[in-house]
Amino acid sequence: MEKINIAEKFDRIDDYWKPRIAAEANGQHVRLAKLKGDFVWHSHADEDELFIVVSGRLTVRFRDREIEVGEGEMLVIPRGVEHLPVAQEEVHLINITAAATTMTGDVESKLAIPIDQLQTV
Amino acid sequence: MEKINIAEKFDRIDDYWKPRIAAEANGQHVRLAKLKGDFVWHSHADEDELFIVVSGRLTVRFRDREIEVGEGEMLVIPRGVEHLPVAQEEVHLINITAAATTMTGDVESKLAIPIDQLQTV
Repeated sequence: MEKINIAEKFDRIDDYWKPRIAAEANGQHVRLAKLKGDFVWHSHADEDELFIVVSGRLTVRFRDREIEVGEGEMLVIPRGVEHLPVAQEEVHLINITAAATTMTGDVESKLAIPIDQLQTV
Repeated sequence: MEKINIAEKFDRIDDYWKPRIAAEANGQHVRLAKLKGDFVWHSHADEDELFIVVSGRLTVRFRDREIEVGEGEMLVIPRGVEHLPVAQEEVHLINITAAATTMTGDVESKLAIPIDQLQTV
């Protein structure tokens, strides 16, 4: 059991859209990721996602609207809701979700790293 | 679905050791609390706890050591591990844990608010 300095962990990440597992609790992953640019439209049939923006400004597009999530803000994306994360500038994101949550749900994408290939940080 | 500004939520809390439910995802609560002083020794038999310190400095005492968790740091307290949170100065804490997690485990304490009486924020 060791404390985790979130900024130090982000310092070790030098690529975009490659979440690292920083911790696990109650079957949830705490994943840290740097984001820049557009991700892909997807949803997660069985898992909610909690986003906490540590720095930058994340736009989460939905089919009927979009939500801007800034530094110090969080958003829960309920299971089944299609969304597209867009980071016009670099975003540092804490993503807390079930350990079973794949990156793009059922959508095939070269951006989707299989869960068993996610690295820790 | 609305974004949550964490600082604004803390502005609405004016008492210590009274967690408010800010969000729920995958059966987990995101609880926000202001802490000051000593809590009580306790453990949670079946639930891990994730602490993220937003401001201040939280000391988590264990039977064999203690860990200081500062601003921007997080700590997972595994199920079954006895601990005593101590906040010498005011701490703003995000506590993410299973929705079933009681405040003091099996320990009786006047500080323990029953889960069904936790307020939202």
